[in-house]
Amino acid sequence: MPSRYDDVMSLSVRRGFLWPAVDLYGGSAGFYDYGHLGARLKRKWEDLWTGYFLGLGDNYYLIDTTTILPEVSLKASGHVDHFTDILVTCTKCKESFRGDHLIEAVTHEEAEGLTTAEVDAKIVELKIRCPKCKGELGPSRPFNMMFPVGVGPLGKDRAYLRPETAQGAFLNFKREFEALRRRLPLGLAIVGRAYRNEISPRQGVYRMREFLQAELQIFFDPATFGAQLPIDSVRDERLRVAMAGEKHEPIATDRTTSDLIRGGIPGFYVYHMALVQRFYLDRLRVPRERFRFAELDERERAFYHKVHFDIQVRQDSLGGFREVGGVHYRTDHDISGHAKASGKDLSVPVADRKVVPHVLELSFGVDRNVWALLDLDYELAGERAVLHLPPALAPVDVGVFPLLSKAGLPERAEALYRDLRPGFDAFYDETGSIGKRYARMDEIGTPFCVTVDHATLEDGTVTLRERDTSGQVRVPGTSVAAILRDLIDARRDFRSIGSAVARP
Amino acid sequence: MPSRYDDVMSLSVRRGFLWPAVDLYGGSAGFYDYGHLGARLKRKWEDLWTGYFLGLGDNYYLIDTTTILPEVSLKASGHVDHFTDILVTCTKCKESFRGDHLIEAVTHEEAEGLTTAEVDAKIVELKIRCPKCKGELGPSRPFNMMFPVGVGPLGKDRAYLRPETAQGAFLNFKREFEALRRRLPLGLAIVGRAYRNEISPRQGVYRMREFLQAELQIFFDPATFGAQLPIDSVRDERLRVAMAGEKHEPIATDRTTSDLIRGGIPGFYVYHMALVQRFYLDRLRVPRERFRFAELDERERAFYHKVHFDIQVRQDSLGGFREVGGVHYRTDHDISGHAKASGKDLSVPVADRKVVPHVLELSFGVDRNVWALLDLDYELAGERAVLHLPPALAPVDVGVFPLLSKAGLPERAEALYRDLRPGFDAFYDETGSIGKRYARMDEIGTPFCVTVDHATLEDGTVTLRERDTSGQVRVPGTSVAAILRDLIDARRDFRSIGSAVARP
Repeated sequence: MPSRYDDVMSLSVRRGFLWPAVDLYGGSAGFYDYGHLGARLKRKWEDLWTGYFLGLGDNYYLIDTTTILPEVSLKASGHVDHFTDILVTCTKCKESFRGDHLIEAVTHEEAEGLTTAEVDAKIVELKIRCPKCKGELGPSRPFNMMFPVGVGPLGKDRAYLRPETAQGAFLNFKREFEALRRRLPLGLAIVGRAYRNEISPRQGVYRMREFLQAELQIFFDPATFGAQLPIDSVRDERLRVAMAGEKHEPIATDRTTSDLIRGGIPGFYVYHMALVQRFYLDRLRVPRERFRFAELDERERAFYHKVHFDIQVRQDSLGGFREVGGVHYRTDHDISGHAKASGKDLSVPVADRKVVPHVLELSFGVDRNVWALLDLDYELAGERAVLHLPPALAPVDVGVFPLLSKAGLPERAEALYRDLRPGFDAFYDETGSIGKRYARMDEIGTPFCVTVDHATLEDGTVTLRERDTSGQVRVPGTSVAAILRDLIDARRDFRSIGSAVARP
Repeated sequence: MPSRYDDVMSLSVRRGFLWPAVDLYGGSAGFYDYGHLGARLKRKWEDLWTGYFLGLGDNYYLIDTTTILPEVSLKASGHVDHFTDILVTCTKCKESFRGDHLIEAVTHEEAEGLTTAEVDAKIVELKIRCPKCKGELGPSRPFNMMFPVGVGPLGKDRAYLRPETAQGAFLNFKREFEALRRRLPLGLAIVGRAYRNEISPRQGVYRMREFLQAELQIFFDPATFGAQLPIDSVRDERLRVAMAGEKHEPIATDRTTSDLIRGGIPGFYVYHMALVQRFYLDRLRVPRERFRFAELDERERAFYHKVHFDIQVRQDSLGGFREVGGVHYRTDHDISGHAKASGKDLSVPVADRKVVPHVLELSFGVDRNVWALLDLDYELAGERAVLHLPPALAPVDVGVFPLLSKAGLPERAEALYRDLRPGFDAFYDETGSIGKRYARMDEIGTPFCVTVDHATLEDGTVTLRERDTSGQVRVPGTSVAAILRDLIDARRDFRSIGSAVARP
């Protein structure tokens, strides 16, 4: 991994964002745990995601479904037969590798989607040997990435850990359609764990065996969906896009929504691309040049994805643009598949027609997004380390300090801390110099600090400090809560505060 | 199950709280999915729990850890060798049963903790035969309740789905102790899934194979913990308690905290019992007579639990007092066990001593708590069905209706709905009579409704209606948000609103 990876992971471990799981026993490859700061950052990301994406429709809801699914349901979805990677095992040291990764390491070109025969041919052609011991590689074979689980006292009810959260939405669609009074579009979102038995999880947080997904499945009537959406509201918005065949870095071109629609991508799809881009640029504050949609070609995408763009963020810790999510037009593949396998009618009445809903999936890897933010926002400049997280996502909203730990200042600061604590993630600290305390807050991304000093005892004002600029203003202690609320919710800019309090 | 169970489950399925998972394929025994209302109720319960219990200390935090744990860590915790139930299989129909349940069904007395030899003897003595086919039962044997998972391309890295969230806290204690600047007590909470391969999950939502736990592990120095807590603040508080040996219904007696401490229960333990009881009576509004702590005797509790009371709620749907959580004094069992197995020193410095922290565990079953609330709060009185959830937990905070769907009323009501939506879980509805709309909201526990009528167009006032009393008052439309906030956060009582708006 690039050295940037180590910098970000070192911050993560030291301060409590995340680290390899079960490291007490030497670690567990492909598994990571979130510490107290990471858990809060992740939770805030999930809340921001939920608020934004459920807000796209007035019939969009969060549900929560089981992670263990019986085989029959995953047979119907195609995962039992097709959710495979190609496995190549060394004949000498018995280490296993993904066939496509072995080839990509030599050619530096995408090799996903090759057949076993093609992988075997490439290994011969390129003279690839075991990366670990240089031994001869055995023949490739398909390997199902789901974890099997035996349920019941004899373990005879075959099941799997879900490989994606999406199936929970498909399995519950009809029930929710009835409970929600039969309206389309209907959105069902799930934020939860999914599991893939990755052959070689050697890319840190990027390729995990247990991971978190946030997915919204929008069920719609293809005859009317486009007309139901305010597509005009994103007209001529410029999207960052790399089409299939032009994905290599640093390429991403601006294309307007109208261009994309003229190029044959459905209007409803382009509309959601625009809203996803706004989420990344406006809410997560990802720099424009580090964001793009990358189209997958027919070979790379699942056969039932009619249109598929990855959502990618360029991260120095991972060596370039990497996937953090995707927008997938799944057509009626899922509902029709479950209707056929279950023998139930899953079509729904719309006016006087029977409609098998189509699905647009907005899919996000939560861990990948959290990591991308840590990568993009962590600035190491000489002595100073600052994590420039958007204020709404910072694990700690505000640090509260007495300038000195004497003369009644700690009591006053603690009182302010207790006042702020119900409404904010506040942190109280009186140890070390004030400069050290600010530095500790900067490093974990705390956007604001409030300091109580001698003047506070006289006139009740406190110092309010902003993380990114180190700028400071004096404000009345009684106004701190209201000012913080406005700053965190981005209703107000820090630079406006100084003059606002200059006139009492 | 009692008929009350069916009433509550029928509401749950019809309106979208919860239902058996994967029912499209005939269901999956021991697994339940949450619909859109249940997911929101559960999320609010989790938020309330997190706010309350993390608030018990200023060094208490949420973390999030993996659900798949390698065998070595669960060997160290004792789960690989001891986390077993006793399994009895019918020689004729091959159906399997829990040995203790077979005996309890006959004796109506607790049979947990019997050995296989004792179960075999009881089966002979009581002439118990297969409950399903009346065939002869085979010999009993221990059955490990964890789900094994094979990790890696050959599945050779043996692991299990975690049987409790607690292990994640123990495994990460030392890392967090360092990241959090070495202070005790340190609290690590996890809200997440746990898994147990129950032999016969035939008790509905109560005994699930995949379930949600909310657990707080408090790591403390036994020499000082009692003195660090404000135990006096719960002095003489009367707790509902059934001691070991007197647990059969309807027994639960009031005992003061001082009595319990005099009886030999540690002060820190009794202090936390009092705070748990306040959570149930004040926050969840469980009626006092339906709440109790039930002590487990030596045979019932895990050998490493020095003191163990179950938290129980009496539910008609489950036939009486049933466990919804527990308070467990685990001593240094966990940290010492992992220190020994990992060969690492997990003691921590406190002043000039080395301390192996003790653990107090506050453990809650999230699904069991959600179900208990549905059971307690669902009132079916003739035609009227009302779910009396505490306002802070209701999935929908407020229904917003136009009295009629004409004359500009819908536009005005929709504008109010849009204003309220960012801060509240609001629901807009204009279909059916106003009485029907109120009834639909009552049934899912919506505590307040706001109705726009002709007077609104004239003077801007709206009708605010309360669920439990059906009481109505007129308030200015512009005050609705502030009034709702106060009512939901219980800063104000609905009966106070009428007079407050009578004087303009």
